[in-house]
Amino acid sequence: MHGNGTSASQNYYHQTSPQRRDTSNESTPTHSAVYQGHQQQRHSFQTSQGSDEDWDDDWDDGVAADEHGGTPEKRGNAQAGYPTTSTSASRRGSAQQSKNTGTVGKNLNRFSTFVKSGGEAFVLGEASGLVRDGDKIFVVMGQYGPEWQENPYPFTCTIDDPTKQTKFKGMKSYMSYGLTPSHTQSQVNRRYKHFDWLYARLVEKFPVISVPHLPEKQATGRFEEDFISKRRKGLIWWMNHMTSHPILSKCDVFQHFLTCSSNDEKAWKQGKRKAEKDDLVGANFFLTICPPALPLDLQEVEGNVDGFKAFTKKMDENIIQLNATIGEFARKQITGFKKEYQRVGQAFRLLSQAFEFDQQVYSAPLNKAMANTGEVYETIGDYFAEQPRQDLEPISDLLAIYQGHLANFPDIIHVQKGALTKAKESQKHGEEKDGIAGGGIHDRCNIISCATLAEIQHFHRVRVRDFKAQMQHFLQQQISFFQKITGKLEEALDMYDQA
Amino acid sequence: MHGNGTSASQNYYHQTSPQRRDTSNESTPTHSAVYQGHQQQRHSFQTSQGSDEDWDDDWDDGVAADEHGGTPEKRGNAQAGYPTTSTSASRRGSAQQSKNTGTVGKNLNRFSTFVKSGGEAFVLGEASGLVRDGDKIFVVMGQYGPEWQENPYPFTCTIDDPTKQTKFKGMKSYMSYGLTPSHTQSQVNRRYKHFDWLYARLVEKFPVISVPHLPEKQATGRFEEDFISKRRKGLIWWMNHMTSHPILSKCDVFQHFLTCSSNDEKAWKQGKRKAEKDDLVGANFFLTICPPALPLDLQEVEGNVDGFKAFTKKMDENIIQLNATIGEFARKQITGFKKEYQRVGQAFRLLSQAFEFDQQVYSAPLNKAMANTGEVYETIGDYFAEQPRQDLEPISDLLAIYQGHLANFPDIIHVQKGALTKAKESQKHGEEKDGIAGGGIHDRCNIISCATLAEIQHFHRVRVRDFKAQMQHFLQQQISFFQKITGKLEEALDMYDQA
Repeated sequence: MHGNGTSASQNYYHQTSPQRRDTSNESTPTHSAVYQGHQQQRHSFQTSQGSDEDWDDDWDDGVAADEHGGTPEKRGNAQAGYPTTSTSASRRGSAQQSKNTGTVGKNLNRFSTFVKSGGEAFVLGEASGLVRDGDKIFVVMGQYGPEWQENPYPFTCTIDDPTKQTKFKGMKSYMSYGLTPSHTQSQVNRRYKHFDWLYARLVEKFPVISVPHLPEKQATGRFEEDFISKRRKGLIWWMNHMTSHPILSKCDVFQHFLTCSSNDEKAWKQGKRKAEKDDLVGANFFLTICPPALPLDLQEVEGNVDGFKAFTKKMDENIIQLNATIGEFARKQITGFKKEYQRVGQAFRLLSQAFEFDQQVYSAPLNKAMANTGEVYETIGDYFAEQPRQDLEPISDLLAIYQGHLANFPDIIHVQKGALTKAKESQKHGEEKDGIAGGGIHDRCNIISCATLAEIQHFHRVRVRDFKAQMQHFLQQQISFFQKITGKLEEALDMYDQA
Repeated sequence: MHGNGTSASQNYYHQTSPQRRDTSNESTPTHSAVYQGHQQQRHSFQTSQGSDEDWDDDWDDGVAADEHGGTPEKRGNAQAGYPTTSTSASRRGSAQQSKNTGTVGKNLNRFSTFVKSGGEAFVLGEASGLVRDGDKIFVVMGQYGPEWQENPYPFTCTIDDPTKQTKFKGMKSYMSYGLTPSHTQSQVNRRYKHFDWLYARLVEKFPVISVPHLPEKQATGRFEEDFISKRRKGLIWWMNHMTSHPILSKCDVFQHFLTCSSNDEKAWKQGKRKAEKDDLVGANFFLTICPPALPLDLQEVEGNVDGFKAFTKKMDENIIQLNATIGEFARKQITGFKKEYQRVGQAFRLLSQAFEFDQQVYSAPLNKAMANTGEVYETIGDYFAEQPRQDLEPISDLLAIYQGHLANFPDIIHVQKGALTKAKESQKHGEEKDGIAGGGIHDRCNIISCATLAEIQHFHRVRVRDFKAQMQHFLQQQISFFQKITGKLEEALDMYDQA
């Protein structure tokens, strides 16, 4: 019990990641030149090689190297299900065709998130690709502004306790999670590295969507109960945010991940290759977005995005504060509070033992009742030590996933701001031209803005839902905790009736 | 609120008096040669002059100096109501008539409690005085051994909140307590120094009765609310122990104190003088004791008294331990616990403030609910800080009065042991003489033993009653405390229904 407690307290500390950056600093987008640009910073401790599981294990032959930064310059488009199409679309950061639009030029900083995400290429009209009806993503005008069209087939997905698997005759072992999506009711088994692969695909594909971060890797103790339970909880949160997202939840690669039978290796590899060769990623992702009929007032958009930027900064600060506070509160309950109640219990018990020296038969029931009160206080001490696991830890888990989202947004905002800047430039230069070329930029900036505002709207919706649910859970747990204590004390009190 | 809290925590510290002595050390009775021998050690911080109230205030003319150690060598016996009688009785420690009984000699240590209490004089047959029927004190044989005959007219006495009085046109001020005994229903006003005077009379009169200690004196801050409330609570405990005691409750000086009208100065002085000239004190007190028909087996008595001695030692140790523990527990609740809950509350409130930056109208009820949760946690912090006053402080008060009793018992046991030693000596020397002189000693040792065991029995009875009641009170308070918290949390939870 003590061991559990201690580790629960440790859980709280690393959540306040030392890699937090100042989210207000988005004006200097000098990220390292990595493939999946905008999430890299937070994601770096998830994709670093060799720190988790048998990472060099050749779990799939073929293009596996792709996911770790290698960018195939040329891809065949002849895979099953995809019609062959000539496309000039480029992946983010790869060769771009020079197709500059009038007076609006390219950004000089080639490492800017705006450039790397494909946002610039799209705004400048350089993206092109075949968008089938099924690929289309609709932004609709809702009561509170643009929002993603709801997934018409919402589903959830459970994650079972992982089981330890071995291969190579026990030489390698790993944990396997059973996932059961509600829409198939059929379980598939996935390893953490499958999640990690999926995550890389999503980050690559969706420049202005905040892909939830996976729970952290851990170099040692991967098979320890605490770590397993913590990772599972993290994956449940992750899955919950995935299935709640109208766009992420229905995208092909996620569906492949959720539904492809664990036993059909061929189907798995096919789906894997298809995802890795997906053309509608980065700049081309924006091609799939269908905005509402009426374009947005870009000035209004700017105000909204600035407001959201201020909001994320504030929320991020206060999440760090809250996380530190509840971490300390948990630690106090596990150590100090427990100790105090146990000491009081012990003192009562000792006094009852002294009373047993009195040789008076009529004192016996009192002595017994006092000894019991002592035990009850020792138990209450244990309750305090065990409680943070029930109520504070879930809040900490919630804050962790939101810290991840908040770390994603500066880059999302940066893409939108970049688009807006281009649109303004274009407007300035092209006012007289009645917006033929400029109008194209304006439209494309509108698309990026709609997607950004839809993502912001989605963030708020889920945030309100999550914090409401988690605060309710927290308070319910606290209430049962204090009721449990009250019940114990009532038992203790009853014993004095005979005294 | 904060001020109260701090002072409540201070309350716990001085209870563990630095003057505690090892109660097992009763074999070396080298007390300072003061009049009211056996209670002096604990009582020293109550009777030290000049540390409390207007002690040099001439509140009664005449023999006032008597109570501070001065022993009038000669007293007139002609006061109203008392028949004039020739008596050879001496006060404890004053001149004793040489009337040694056979072979059993006097103790060489004239400062021994046994000598000073009058126990030796009585055992050696040197005490003599007129005992009227009304003065007689009966020890009866109860189910669990000798016990004091119950007071046939039991009563209680309330102590009202004290009021500040002034005299000498406001030059002097003091607190006056309204006492209302249940058997008269008539209020009298008394000052602390009246209690102190009464206490000195009782200690002088009853050598083997544990007179409850008065609450401590305090040099400064006598009119501060905290001190006044604490002293009143202490006096209530004291009064409760006085009225519960079959002998103390009905003794003349106590009745005078409780019933003499505060406005009838003449009656007060008369009663005061009468009490100060009471002959049946010390050695003569034993003359008033009527033991049960069958004498006790002195060997059995020795075993019982030794058992009680071990008990008091153990109880004393564990009371000190418990007092220190609950003192620390109170301090932690007032400081640490409060701080932790308030910090958590503040962190929730700050996050709700961050959420207000979000400009989303549907988030408002959540923000409000979270702000409320924050306030609730801050309130819970206050609850923790206020709670020790309700439950731990009363236990501390209880322990204080029992520390006083436990400090009284070594001397009581010493008197009994002294008597027993004399009886043994007498038996050894007088076996052949068929116990004529030795029989007298044996009878008188039996009287002292009966009184001692009756007092021990009374102590246990009251102890069981007090600890039962106080533990019940403590647990009831703790239960309402946690219920109050639960209620607050339920309110907080309800607010999320609208979120």
